[in-house]
Parts: sequence; C-alpha cells; structure tokens
Amino acid sequence: MLIGLSGGPSVAINASMAGIIRAAVQSGKYNNIYGSINGIHGVLNDNLIELTKYSDDHSIKLLCQTPAMALGSCRKKLNENEYADIAGIFDKYNIKSFFYIGGNDSMDTVLKLKNYFKSINSDISIIGVPKTIDNDLPVTDHTPGFGSAAKYLYHTMSEIICDSRIYPVQSVVIVEIMGRDSGWLTLAAALPSFLDSGIHSPPQIVALPEAAFDEKEFLKQVNSLLETQKSVICVVSEGITDKSGDYVGMSAKSGAVDTFGHVYLSGVGKYLEGLVAKEIGCKVRSIELNVMQRCSAHLASKTDITEAFAVGEKAVEYALNGASGITLVFNRVSNSPYKVEIGSTEVENIANKAKDVPQSWLNYNDKVVQKEIVDYMLPLILGDLEFIKDKNELPEILRLY
Amino acid sequence: MLIGLSGGPSVAINASMAGIIRAAVQSGKYNNIYGSINGIHGVLNDNLIELTKYSDDHSIKLLCQTPAMALGSCRKKLNENEYADIAGIFDKYNIKSFFYIGGNDSMDTVLKLKNYFKSINSDISIIGVPKTIDNDLPVTDHTPGFGSAAKYLYHTMSEIICDSRIYPVQSVVIVEIMGRDSGWLTLAAALPSFLDSGIHSPPQIVALPEAAFDEKEFLKQVNSLLETQKSVICVVSEGITDKSGDYVGMSAKSGAVDTFGHVYLSGVGKYLEGLVAKEIGCKVRSIELNVMQRCSAHLASKTDITEAFAVGEKAVEYALNGASGITLVFNRVSNSPYKVEIGSTEVENIANKAKDVPQSWLNYNDKVVQKEIVDYMLPLILGDLEFIKDKNELPEILRLY
Repeated sequence: MLIGLSGGPSVAINASMAGIIRAAVQSGKYNNIYGSINGIHGVLNDNLIELTKYSDDHSIKLLCQTPAMALGSCRKKLNENEYADIAGIFDKYNIKSFFYIGGNDSMDTVLKLKNYFKSINSDISIIGVPKTIDNDLPVTDHTPGFGSAAKYLYHTMSEIICDSRIYPVQSVVIVEIMGRDSGWLTLAAALPSFLDSGIHSPPQIVALPEAAFDEKEFLKQVNSLLETQKSVICVVSEGITDKSGDYVGMSAKSGAVDTFGHVYLSGVGKYLEGLVAKEIGCKVRSIELNVMQRCSAHLASKTDITEAFAVGEKAVEYALNGASGITLVFNRVSNSPYKVEIGSTEVENIANKAKDVPQSWLNYNDKVVQKEIVDYMLPLILGDLEFIKDKNELPEILRLY
Repeated sequence: MLIGLSGGPSVAINASMAGIIRAAVQSGKYNNIYGSINGIHGVLNDNLIELTKYSDDHSIKLLCQTPAMALGSCRKKLNENEYADIAGIFDKYNIKSFFYIGGNDSMDTVLKLKNYFKSINSDISIIGVPKTIDNDLPVTDHTPGFGSAAKYLYHTMSEIICDSRIYPVQSVVIVEIMGRDSGWLTLAAALPSFLDSGIHSPPQIVALPEAAFDEKEFLKQVNSLLETQKSVICVVSEGITDKSGDYVGMSAKSGAVDTFGHVYLSGVGKYLEGLVAKEIGCKVRSIELNVMQRCSAHLASKTDITEAFAVGEKAVEYALNGASGITLVFNRVSNSPYKVEIGSTEVENIANKAKDVPQSWLNYNDKVVQKEIVDYMLPLILGDLEFIKDKNELPEILRLY
C-alpha cells in the first residue's frame, strides 16, 4: 500500500497517516507500507520511502504530535498523460491500495485515478482521506485539521483580547484569518465573543467571505462601537470581497507599489488598518495569524487528533473491503454528548467542491445563532494532547525524510 | 500600599503583582492593598481599586496565568509638576509603599518619585520591580517576562520550521521578532538551530539590532544557502539598522504609499520579503509574530512565572526593611543546576538604560557561542504551567476592572 499527503498543512494530517499505518499493520494484509514524498510528485518521480517500520507505539505517538506534513506535500493537478506512469510505479511496488490525504483539490487526484484504474480494469483501491483546516468540504460534518486550527484561534484570540485593552486610549485591532473562500476559521476566532455573556464582547466585528464586505458600513460599525468601548477587535477572513466580488483592498494592492515597483504584498488586515487610520484616526494595529494557525501543534485539539487517527484506520477498513473512489466523512450523531460516526461518500461529491458557512450564521450577532455556532464548534476543539518531549522540553518531532 | 503596572505587556507581570499581594497580606503590615488603573495615570486620576480581596489561593493562581496587564498600563514620563499631586493621593490613601512594575522607562518614574519623596523627607518606599519581554535591563541576569516570550518563540519557530519544508520548491521564510534595540528575543527564536546538531539547521540567518545589517551580504548568504538547502529561514529583529544606523527598509517605507497617501505601514520582514522576491525570485513569505510573543500565556514558562512571583514577594520584604529607590534583580548562581538569587540595585542603574546582547554572541554560527546562548536561555523557558480552566477549557482569566 501507498500513502500520499497533498495540499496545505495541518496539525492533524500526520495523525491520519499514523492511523493508516497502524490499521494496515494490524490487518496483516499488506507486505509493505510505502509513503510518497511530496504527494503525487513522489509517485511520478519514484520517490517512495518505507513506512512499515514506523508502526510501533512510540513512532505512532510521535507522528500524531508532529505538525505540518511528515511526507511533504504538493499542489498539483494531474494530467491524463501521467496516469500510465503512475500505474507503472504502482505495478513496480505492487501497490494494492492508495490513500491520498488532502482537501477538495487533492480529491481531484483521487477521482482521476479512480476513473483511470477502473478504465483499465484494475482492482487497486483509491481512497480519499479528508484533511483541511478550512473545514470547507461538502458532505462531511467537519474536516480533520479544522479543530486544531480553531483551537489555536480560540486561545490566541482570547489572549489578544487581554493584550488589546491595557492602555488608556481607544484602539482598534484587526486580525486577519485564513480561509480564502469560507469563513469557518474566522467564526472560530470569534468564539471568545460568542462564549462570553457580555454585550459587544470582543471580537465585536466578524467579516466572512460569505457576506459582501462594505467599507463604509464597517467604518460606521467601528465608530459606533468606539462610542461605548475602549477596544474594538475585528476578525477578518483573508478572502473577504466587496459587493462586486472583488477582494477587499485589491485596488489598494494594485495601486501601491514598493520601491522595486512590486505590488503591495500585504493582505486585507493591513489594508483595513490603513482605512481605520485614515478615516477614524485612532490607534490601530493589524495582526496576521499566518501559518501559525495551521502548524501550532502545541495547541492541537485532542478531539481532532483522535478523529484524524480514527479516519485513517477506517480508510484501511474500506480499502480491505474493496472500496475505491470514496472519501471518508464524519456524520455527527449528537452535540451533547458529542458523538460522530465515520462513513464514506463517492469522491465526486467532494472533489473540487466547497462548503460555505450556513447562510443563517452570517447573522452572528443573534444569540440563537451564536449558540448554534458554539454547539457545533466547541466539541471539535476540546482536549489537550500529552506530548512526548525531547530533552530540551520541545515536543519531539518525527522526521521521515 | 499601592501597586502600578507600566510599559508593555508580558505573560509574567501579573505574577509579580500576585507575589506582592501575597507577601503583603502574609506580612500583616499593610491595612490595604491598592492597585492603580493604567499605572501612574491611575494615581494622577485617583483611579485606584482594592486588591486585598485577591489574596486567596484561587485568585493568586488566576493572576499568575492571566496574560497582559490586569491593572492596565501606561507609557508616561512624569513631569515634575505632577509630583505633588501624586503625593496628595498617596496621602489620601495613606500609602507607605509603592511598587511599580515595568521596564527601563517605567524605572524613570521610580527614580523621579524616589528623589521627590526624599526631598520632602517622606519615608515612603518606592520600589521598582523589573519586567520586560525584551530582556534588556542592565545589572539583572534576565528579566521576568523574557522567559515566557522566549518559550513562545522557541516552540513557534520549531513549528514554522516543520511548516516551511513541505513543498518541493525552494523557499525563504522571514520571521520578524520584537525587540527594537536589542536582540535577546531574536536569539531565542534561533534556539531550534542552536539546539540542533545539524549544520545549517534553520533558522540559518539571525539578524540582531546589535550588528549592522547589510542587504547585499544578506542576499549573498541566502543565495549561498539555497545552493544546498530547500528551505531557508531568517529570524530578524524589528529594529535592525544598516551601517549608517537607519532602520532597514526605511527608504522603502517612506517611498511606498498606499491609496490614501499613507506611508507603508509594514515592518522589516515585509521589506525583506520584497527584497528576496525581487533579487532572488524564489518563493518567499514573511511572518510577523506580533503581540502573540508577548501575550501567549498558554506557552508561559513555569520558571518565568515562578520567578516573577518570587520577585514580587521579595519586593515587599525590601519595602518592609525600609528600602526605597531600588529595583530588584536576578543574580545567576549556576546554570546547571539552574539557580538564581534575588537581589537589588539602585534604580539609577536601570532607569532609562539598556543592555545589549554580548558582543561575542553576534558570532552566532560558532558552536561555543551557541552553547553559551543555550546554557543561558534554556533554563529560563522550561516548565509548563498547570492552568485552571473554565467550563469551555480556556485558561481562566482574572479581570480586575
């Protein structure tokens, strides 16, 4: 069997790989477990490594606490003239099951390979294992990786809120959050507000890609909040657009150039910082949480890591039952107590598709909506990992290549 | 007695306040413990609150895990025509000891008040308690707050290193670190390299304010590293200057304006990102660790919090012994086992002064120097706090106002 990782990193993807390795070894049905370096690239370049030796408890635990992607990754759309090469490598290594862990783009690879191997009457299992911090896959209740990123945002925002209120001057803080097309992570960053019973608890303003952003309305809101509050915090998705569908700040981006003549590299947070500075004139700061929201293993959610591992194990079960062209999904049975079941869906239902935040949640100031968001998100971010630490107290990391 | 907090936030300053409260109550020598909201501002505005009720174990523990500044802060240089007003408030509340927790600027307030009260033959104790994430106070081995900020940088950099190596393309990551005048925090961000036995372990490039930064040399270094390595990581202090003493990127900053005609707001990280993009042309990303490095209580160093508390307790002892115009300091007795003693110095030795990184440490590629840095820093960042959590698993926070 062969495992590949694809797309953007998360804190939980290595746990899914660990689940696959563990279940594969326990099944006794595979002679070798291979990993492909840099996803499908590694297959095309015959760059595989042996993973069977990492099935002991210690290695499995280390994999579950190692952030980013222990086999590397790629962002590649397959061409049809590459299918035969891939089949050749699968043949060379006698691959019977291929597990590809990734998001909506990576599932395109699963779909193409499933169709190709079917067309040549091969019985190789091609299984998609979901992963994305963005939480934007259809069908599944949520995605592995989201819970840990959401936990990072929840904790970090609660600390930024403490930091932002200490000076005796009015201030605005704008925090830019990942999620170009959907606002799941930005809503997670707003959890400290939804969980606080106070009126106008920070972050008071939440801007998602699912709703058109109006700069005038935004400034009006900030001004109105500043009438009664010392510190206003806004969480803003990197992908917010105006009513024409253009990214907010695009005109500024293409207008402003640095000394090299390069287009302004900053994101929407920096843009809105400039807007507030000019139009309101109070103290203002923007914060970009950058890659930390996708790699902060020290704030991994135990729920997330446990589920990511379980989804990997389940993927092996599906493969051994002869499934191909499916992606695993979570079905939520109940919020309280929190319970999910792992099922599957045809990969066509996930590949190249995206799931927005529910329309009704855009009304995030409504207490009923806030409770719905909390009930959905809170179970996903709970629990701390217990880390194996190295002699210098850093969580130990497993390097595979 | 009265406590005030001043300057920039840290994760440990509330622990020093907790130490003062605890020792004051245990001494039985003070009728009331007051806290001034927003440092010396709160004294001038008669905005004090009672702190005596927070001396129970639960409140003390909550204070020790609350980030930023539970009494608020200020950045204010005292005018001499304000001294009499302050004396009036001290008189009104019958203040016998005043504890001011802060960095080099805040110690200016301690110095001025000490001199004033001496000049009017008052026996009020004015005690400075050190605090700054920058670690740039003279006399003391290190400052409360530094250890936790350094721990945040150490852990976060080790995660960013994992994140940066996953794609099959060469890339440069530039991480901008706080510390305008001294490079202590930037060296802490380089710990993953110093602790790794590999040659050229990331972060491979370390730029401190103590050494003139040469853009051509920097590009040469990056290019040379890219010959053998896929991922190059640079940690850069926000305050690096060129050989003329100008902040790096200043010319770009004053050159580039946004659509409002505002000067480019970004820092040196963004500037160097542009430089690498233009001159080298590989994939490049800049990351600003922003306020997270000063408020991430979830990564507080237990050593730091314990010492911050102890320095608060000791401050009360000094006050009760009649001291005034002193600041507390750490004297390191040994690295292994790590042991410090708390002593004091005249506040004149600290107020408005700064301590650079030792000149010899600028040669950070030398293995002997790396060991010296590790031996100095590692003890300061070790140990995790055990948090009291709220019902939603967030570390609970004590709000005093």
